[in-house]
Amino acid sequence: MNEFDVIRLLSERLPTSPPEVVVPVGDDCAVLRLGDGLWVAAADMLVFGRHFKEWAAPEDVGYKAVAVNVSDVAAMGGVPRFVLSSGGATDPETTLRCMNGVLQACEEFAVYPLGGDTTRAPALTVDVSILGQLSHAPVLRSGARPGDLLAVTGELGASVAGLLALENGDARLERLVKKHLRPEPRVEFGGAAARLGAHAMIDLSDGLASDVRYVCESSGVGCRISLDLLPIAGDTREYLRSVSRDPEILAATGGEDYELLIAASEEVVEALVAESGIPITVIGEVTEQKEVVFLRGGEPVENLSGWDHFSGA
Amino acid sequence: MNEFDVIRLLSERLPTSPPEVVVPVGDDCAVLRLGDGLWVAAADMLVFGRHFKEWAAPEDVGYKAVAVNVSDVAAMGGVPRFVLSSGGATDPETTLRCMNGVLQACEEFAVYPLGGDTTRAPALTVDVSILGQLSHAPVLRSGARPGDLLAVTGELGASVAGLLALENGDARLERLVKKHLRPEPRVEFGGAAARLGAHAMIDLSDGLASDVRYVCESSGVGCRISLDLLPIAGDTREYLRSVSRDPEILAATGGEDYELLIAASEEVVEALVAESGIPITVIGEVTEQKEVVFLRGGEPVENLSGWDHFSGA
Repeated sequence: MNEFDVIRLLSERLPTSPPEVVVPVGDDCAVLRLGDGLWVAAADMLVFGRHFKEWAAPEDVGYKAVAVNVSDVAAMGGVPRFVLSSGGATDPETTLRCMNGVLQACEEFAVYPLGGDTTRAPALTVDVSILGQLSHAPVLRSGARPGDLLAVTGELGASVAGLLALENGDARLERLVKKHLRPEPRVEFGGAAARLGAHAMIDLSDGLASDVRYVCESSGVGCRISLDLLPIAGDTREYLRSVSRDPEILAATGGEDYELLIAASEEVVEALVAESGIPITVIGEVTEQKEVVFLRGGEPVENLSGWDHFSGA
Repeated sequence: MNEFDVIRLLSERLPTSPPEVVVPVGDDCAVLRLGDGLWVAAADMLVFGRHFKEWAAPEDVGYKAVAVNVSDVAAMGGVPRFVLSSGGATDPETTLRCMNGVLQACEEFAVYPLGGDTTRAPALTVDVSILGQLSHAPVLRSGARPGDLLAVTGELGASVAGLLALENGDARLERLVKKHLRPEPRVEFGGAAARLGAHAMIDLSDGLASDVRYVCESSGVGCRISLDLLPIAGDTREYLRSVSRDPEILAATGGEDYELLIAASEEVVEALVAESGIPITVIGEVTEQKEVVFLRGGEPVENLSGWDHFSGA
């Protein structure tokens, strides 16, 4: 049994949803209609040894716990508004440092901390729940249509390069390390994608290879993605090569980029490129055939999937 | 530095609250106005070794994490509606059992699970966030007035007696053990107290001696409470005596009863007694003098405060 089995078994036991629930668990966020407004809700927990190691300062851990939740809200097209944060460590000083990171992120992303809980714990642990607000219909994972373009924001692979730099003690690679420790969720882009009518959207947390599969499976479609098109920055490419890693493969599987992947018509992608202040890169297209295909130099690449940071190669 | 210092230092750093925030962190729940409705939000985390030990089944832990959050909503006069739950253990089987306990509690308290997160963790950990709905103005900790009666629901001391039974391996004391592992939050009573106009309310989680201090401090008042009036069941009294504990002292300090304490006029208390299907006991009164006084046989009892389950006597 693994984490995915746990989630599958639990989703089979879900009770009937009350009328306020527009979208239940299973997307980046659940969607609720409260009064006259649409709200999204999600939670993510970070635990020492699983999501970070001693190279992360407690402030970074608290900050990131908020940032990854903000990214889930962005992936629905929402604006992050409120968080609750619970956490603890073996000593109160570490707990305080972590919660100070939570508050830094609240300031950065203009979300308001409604409270939470602090406790002693055997290792640094923080869980953040978020409420975000929608001003348009949410963009779900399930709306991709054959013929849609697949496009990603920003760059891929920088976070996993930063993680490897941290693991290797190469702390002078500051930009990459910061990409891993303090991700920048794409809230404005997510809102624009919702407003302009993107068909599907997801944030890239598990890695493109896994995340695009969630989109295809819930949309009942397939896709073709060219690894040659992935936006990989020069320093990412250089560092990954210097530690004998394949940049394209890690950009597709490394995860934790917290960029957004959209499936949208060519017109919507063009409008987003014109409007958005960040790079948008078309990396492939949605197909009717229900198969997720990665190409490199025109040839299929087999067995690409998410990469388990602390157990895989 | 302890947990309370952490909370104090963090509350000094809170940003300015947005217009939706009616009550910020500091009460049992924060209160939000979303659209045309009032909502309450809170979170509580339970961690192995701090809140429970090997005597708790993972299902009990998940169940209790929801129940204690439901109790926070009850203490504002609200109806629990939605939860997010995050948690994990060293193995997925234990995580699944814990989350099954979460779902059992969702069914029991008619709250809907919006999602959350599962992960590996060094010891069983679960954090639940809750959203509750208010149909009346919330009952805060800060509204107690001199002359108000202090009254509690149900019974006190059963939970700490159950905890001692678990610690001593006296599992045959089923009723007391269940009081500790599966508390019964007082949602209906909390709603009635809000509707009928109780002045202040709090749920008894840290123990009456601590919790009544929170009410008095935030209301700018004091109180006199008679330990002789505390509602202590026969089996609680008998078991605590059999393990050489003082029933009244533990009923005032043991904590985790998840009963409600109200400060209200005599008329409101009488109306609640008449309407409510559960025992309501007047245990003292609110005073103008800002001092929390516990009496026993008419004599003051000194140095009563909350009891740290895993470090205190």
